[in-house]
Amino acid sequence: MSLPRKRKRQECEYFDCYSDVNVHEEMIADEVRTNAYRLGILRNANALRGKVVLDVGAGTAILSVFCVQAGARRVYAVEASTICRQAREVVKLNRMEEQITVIEGVMESVELPEKVDVIVSEWMGYALMYESMLNSVLAARDRWLKPGGLILPACAELFIVPVSDPATDWRLDFWSQVKKQYGVDMSCMTTFARKCIMGEEMAVQPLCAEDVLAHPTRFARLDLSRATLDDIRTLSGGFSCYCFGSARMHGFCIWFSVTFPGGEKPLVLSTSPFLEETHWKQTVLYLDEPVPVVQDTGISGDITMTPSEHNQRHLRVRLDYRIGTQEKKTKNYRMGD
Amino acid sequence: MSLPRKRKRQECEYFDCYSDVNVHEEMIADEVRTNAYRLGILRNANALRGKVVLDVGAGTAILSVFCVQAGARRVYAVEASTICRQAREVVKLNRMEEQITVIEGVMESVELPEKVDVIVSEWMGYALMYESMLNSVLAARDRWLKPGGLILPACAELFIVPVSDPATDWRLDFWSQVKKQYGVDMSCMTTFARKCIMGEEMAVQPLCAEDVLAHPTRFARLDLSRATLDDIRTLSGGFSCYCFGSARMHGFCIWFSVTFPGGEKPLVLSTSPFLEETHWKQTVLYLDEPVPVVQDTGISGDITMTPSEHNQRHLRVRLDYRIGTQEKKTKNYRMGD
Repeated sequence: MSLPRKRKRQECEYFDCYSDVNVHEEMIADEVRTNAYRLGILRNANALRGKVVLDVGAGTAILSVFCVQAGARRVYAVEASTICRQAREVVKLNRMEEQITVIEGVMESVELPEKVDVIVSEWMGYALMYESMLNSVLAARDRWLKPGGLILPACAELFIVPVSDPATDWRLDFWSQVKKQYGVDMSCMTTFARKCIMGEEMAVQPLCAEDVLAHPTRFARLDLSRATLDDIRTLSGGFSCYCFGSARMHGFCIWFSVTFPGGEKPLVLSTSPFLEETHWKQTVLYLDEPVPVVQDTGISGDITMTPSEHNQRHLRVRLDYRIGTQEKKTKNYRMGD
Repeated sequence: MSLPRKRKRQECEYFDCYSDVNVHEEMIADEVRTNAYRLGILRNANALRGKVVLDVGAGTAILSVFCVQAGARRVYAVEASTICRQAREVVKLNRMEEQITVIEGVMESVELPEKVDVIVSEWMGYALMYESMLNSVLAARDRWLKPGGLILPACAELFIVPVSDPATDWRLDFWSQVKKQYGVDMSCMTTFARKCIMGEEMAVQPLCAEDVLAHPTRFARLDLSRATLDDIRTLSGGFSCYCFGSARMHGFCIWFSVTFPGGEKPLVLSTSPFLEETHWKQTVLYLDEPVPVVQDTGISGDITMTPSEHNQRHLRVRLDYRIGTQEKKTKNYRMGD
């Protein structure tokens, strides 16, 4: 059957309930993520002890429980989706009804009985800002955080680096292998496949250290205690690097990290391709076609990340770049539109 | 971040072009499928030599090329989606413009210049009938196939068997493991997870021979030369079997096979859990909760498969069943609604 539908069925149709448990299982099973939050909260026990905490987008309330374990006197766990029913059960099972109040509602419109000393939230989406809840975290800060209060994590950073992607080469080459396998020459499909795979849609997929072609550049940094809604609307910066060696460059990879203060050295939750994979993987921005690079090929450019005009939770990226002596190019990407 | 959206982004948003190459790559890379069609067509060379063929939902026209390689004089490759542009390129590259005419259009409304001797089509969806094109194949048969003409494949069969699903047990147990891992008791999530995972949505996933708890029953068979649109609207049948041994039964597994005539023994393309995995995998219908069975536990029932009232391409299944001495139960399932 020659219809894209099969794929859609296989991968798209998560119904409310099913989707819910899937996504919570995936997040909690992501040990890099959950351990970073656990340790990031516990290392701030001094700041949390006896204090009032707001958990923005609490989900199953696991972060709220970590906060009580770190000594928090009271936690307001705000969650808009129906998973807050499960959050209440988790709170009860862990005998923290006295400390944790689960509030069903949208952060921007709920009322808390008091100001808070600490805000904790796991708000990051793919490429940091896709479907992110950062808006809600900043709104909560402006309305409910006491002056000088703590936000966990405290800052976020975005990185970019040119990459090679062997999986794309494999997929492009697939069409030249069909003749060998089935006796039908389908090599003409390669152009179509390249247009599809190396298109304008950003791809969420795992890369590894071997795919990275140069030193990464940090192109944006957000201090959550100070950033304004205006600041986070446009995240942009320049980058410049030199390739390590000969390779086929397929595009640019972007990823993020967030940092928990406290302790001697900050604790960093990173979604870098150099480190253990997380459920955020990395985000790949493909060139229109692979470009060969050699040692010391200079790659530079500017990246600008904004919400889509159609949907504030979707993402647009504009990339102006130059590879070696090629002329400067511009490519616009989208995620979710 | 506690939102189901992440998952959605990751798995749902295939844009036209991207989706297209993905699905064609998946189908052609499915060697069980593509080799079965190739050999199923070649073994009918005697019936195809010098004859006129209609390829219903031709996609990239690979089946049309197989038909010409088997000796067909002319093939009409009908395809409604824009992939027919790639089909034309494939035809040209294989120098078959004289034999293969790619026609962009919906099967029910295209006009062919002549009647055909053979219809070939890969029309099967998940659980055979989900998003299936069988309606179009039968419409093409009634309008364009000469009396006594051949349809490849010639018949389809549906099977059902009780199964165990270790992956579900693992996922249900996950929530009891959270305390060990992160010090938070989330065992109360198990009930919610069970309701989600063992819900009314049919699941497309691969099982293996070890998961099968009894001898399968063939509950429906379609002869494509005779079946009417009415016949294929409701596929139903009874089943009865005895368990091989002690196990936790999670539900029923259904799958299909199609058969190519010609040759001494028919060639069967089967999506059974006993054989090599295909991109159709198997379809699992979960009970509300796992049920322990032992050797010789009798399991019987009736299954009825119909299109959804909301969308003719979506699927509903009604299952009436009895396990051992339990009372008779009924569960209604959906795929795609």
